[in-house]
Amino acid sequence: MRTEAFDAVDIIRTKRDRGTLTPEQIDWTIDAYTRGVIADEQMSALNMAILLNGMDRTEISRWTAAMIASGERMDFSSLRTPTGEVKATADKHSTGGVGDKITLPLAPLVAVFGVAVPQLSGRGLGHTGGTLDKLESIPGWQANLSNEHLLNQLQDLGAVICAAGSGLAPADKKLYALRDVTGTVEAIPLIASSIMSKKIAEGTGALVLDVKVGSGAFMKDEAMARELAETMVALGTDAGVKTVALMTDMSTPLGLTAGNAIEVEESVEVLAGGGPADVVELTVKLAEEMLAAAGVHDADPAAALADGRAMDVWKKMISAQGGDPEASLPVARESEVISAEADGVLTQLDALQVGHAAWRLGAGRARKEDPVQAGAGVRLHAKPGDVVRRGQPLMTLLTDTPERFERARQALDGAAVIAPEGSRSSRQLVIDRIAE
Amino acid sequence: MRTEAFDAVDIIRTKRDRGTLTPEQIDWTIDAYTRGVIADEQMSALNMAILLNGMDRTEISRWTAAMIASGERMDFSSLRTPTGEVKATADKHSTGGVGDKITLPLAPLVAVFGVAVPQLSGRGLGHTGGTLDKLESIPGWQANLSNEHLLNQLQDLGAVICAAGSGLAPADKKLYALRDVTGTVEAIPLIASSIMSKKIAEGTGALVLDVKVGSGAFMKDEAMARELAETMVALGTDAGVKTVALMTDMSTPLGLTAGNAIEVEESVEVLAGGGPADVVELTVKLAEEMLAAAGVHDADPAAALADGRAMDVWKKMISAQGGDPEASLPVARESEVISAEADGVLTQLDALQVGHAAWRLGAGRARKEDPVQAGAGVRLHAKPGDVVRRGQPLMTLLTDTPERFERARQALDGAAVIAPEGSRSSRQLVIDRIAE
Repeated sequence: MRTEAFDAVDIIRTKRDRGTLTPEQIDWTIDAYTRGVIADEQMSALNMAILLNGMDRTEISRWTAAMIASGERMDFSSLRTPTGEVKATADKHSTGGVGDKITLPLAPLVAVFGVAVPQLSGRGLGHTGGTLDKLESIPGWQANLSNEHLLNQLQDLGAVICAAGSGLAPADKKLYALRDVTGTVEAIPLIASSIMSKKIAEGTGALVLDVKVGSGAFMKDEAMARELAETMVALGTDAGVKTVALMTDMSTPLGLTAGNAIEVEESVEVLAGGGPADVVELTVKLAEEMLAAAGVHDADPAAALADGRAMDVWKKMISAQGGDPEASLPVARESEVISAEADGVLTQLDALQVGHAAWRLGAGRARKEDPVQAGAGVRLHAKPGDVVRRGQPLMTLLTDTPERFERARQALDGAAVIAPEGSRSSRQLVIDRIAE
Repeated sequence: MRTEAFDAVDIIRTKRDRGTLTPEQIDWTIDAYTRGVIADEQMSALNMAILLNGMDRTEISRWTAAMIASGERMDFSSLRTPTGEVKATADKHSTGGVGDKITLPLAPLVAVFGVAVPQLSGRGLGHTGGTLDKLESIPGWQANLSNEHLLNQLQDLGAVICAAGSGLAPADKKLYALRDVTGTVEAIPLIASSIMSKKIAEGTGALVLDVKVGSGAFMKDEAMARELAETMVALGTDAGVKTVALMTDMSTPLGLTAGNAIEVEESVEVLAGGGPADVVELTVKLAEEMLAAAGVHDADPAAALADGRAMDVWKKMISAQGGDPEASLPVARESEVISAEADGVLTQLDALQVGHAAWRLGAGRARKEDPVQAGAGVRLHAKPGDVVRRGQPLMTLLTDTPERFERARQALDGAAVIAPEGSRSSRQLVIDRIAE
């Protein structure tokens, strides 16, 4: 029998009584929980104490480091530039939003400028879609790559979007499942360390965080989003990763699509030099941040969208993972249109409600093991600020299973607000930039 | 499959966010936890949120009622006075202290005046002894009684001290075991509802609480002890039980003994009209409170100790449970004396340290399944306020297992403080009285 260095109840009491955990206590906590020495009921009490009493920067950094130490770390130091130097790497993480397909055009766009983008992604749960779910609507495309494939593709094309291996921060996986059922998801130290442990373990040199704020975001509140952004930037910096965060608006969906295949279609429009203005704006801003963080300051990402260079990388990237970039995408079998009920200006189109509607139509999943419908989702025909006429189509609901329309319509009740003509809808896409 | 009325995560979030739980949510929580629908890791997160964010009086009352509803309730309405009226019942609960043998003389003393005392008690864990452990040092005495025996003995003698049945508030049992390993024992709403659910389920008409304050008590801090006392008085009152609390000093042990047989011996001295002044004082004060709460206002408990009436009930009570009140009590095989190290006034004799020493000598147990030594403990030869001479015996350590002396001595290091002659030790035994 192994002698344990600490006692779980002492550690819970320390945090309960607003104390600071020592580095040794934190290392033991994560390790002992992974080994099953700290029981779930003890960890959930500790999580609640952390949620209510907080952790300081030193504690959160150590907590994150301990989660990284629970698993493997990736190493991209073998990647080389044409001149034989170590290739710079940059990654982006979004806290999740409705219609957020930015990763799709962004990864190939950044790769155009010689920075490698290892975009290890996840699947969607709840009202926000998952990047892998979206890409899997492309016939043949594979999310799971071997490490060797990942490194070769990064060396050759500079961009990979694939599933994160289960070996990264396994403690986080166990902890997240526990938080999900114990009302302790919303603890900023735990959210920040969960995200950053995986991103730091991935071994990227630079990281840009897209922290969403608004109804469709995990953080509805700007102050909370700011605290999360600042905490994650500090964590990345402490771990030697050049980290910047943008706080961006998620009160209304990004672009004109929320779903899987329809978001891929919109991403391809952006890569072809078109697409909705907000998606283009955010893609370019995030690309500029990633390139700057990776040490590339003279790039013009907007030009690389306009002239087809980003599209070239996209097609190669999709092909390299078994997908056919020219293939037709799946289309939903059934559709229903929701029309404007008045003349005026569309001042609001609620992101959370559109996200719930897309989810109910089959674009998202309620449980991890559920499938998603490739063609399902919501297509928007107007955005806040647009003038609309009574009877004009506002949205098209898409699904293979028409019995879902009713619940989707319920989810959208009151989502669109039309005000008298002359009203304004102000939306600032990038709310703030957080760096150290 | 049963459809559940609520979701555990919603309830945890409500308390986490400082909300108030509805009566229906509380009823469901206790019931669902008892049924295993709420998992331990969910209940422990809720407990931590309750510890840190509190519950209001309405919530605690309902929580207590739900715990009572999880099991059986006792009913003493069949007990009659000689004139055929329903007999009044009164019970006492102590939050636990070192040398606290008060229940032993108190139960027969109150019974002298025609009030029935159903004293359902527990065993000791940690540094405070258990009433049943003490009484079990009397040869033949049985803690476990049938309900029928309990009622008959209460009718005939008016006093019973026995083990509480497992059918009372079973939710409390499960919850207490969880709190013990998750750092959530110290939540006043949970402590108060744990104690009061069992006491109210026992069916007593009046209840006097002895809430200990000081180093040897569960509550070291007077403000916390007061909050606990006020909460329990409110809970009893809300449940229709006439409830009063005394806050009493536990900075030094009660009386001159801390152990099992030696505490019975001291109790018998009190019942014979002698015994240490503090034990007599507290026994009489608590008897007066119990009798007043049960509606008896003209009693003179001190006289009933002096004239042998309480001793008569004691002997009958012990005999009725198989014990021999005249039998010699077990004596520890080994003893060691600790002497005063200076001339002066003993100003402190720390209750917690004496309690730990008695525990280490074998009087208490570390785990529920451990046995206790009947003869082990600490006998005091001086109390705070007494003048002592260097070399004079201060304490005698008693055990059957002499290898325990060393750890007991370590526990006592610095426990006795001797100040220059002329110094004073002020100790107020009853600190306050709390009633509605």
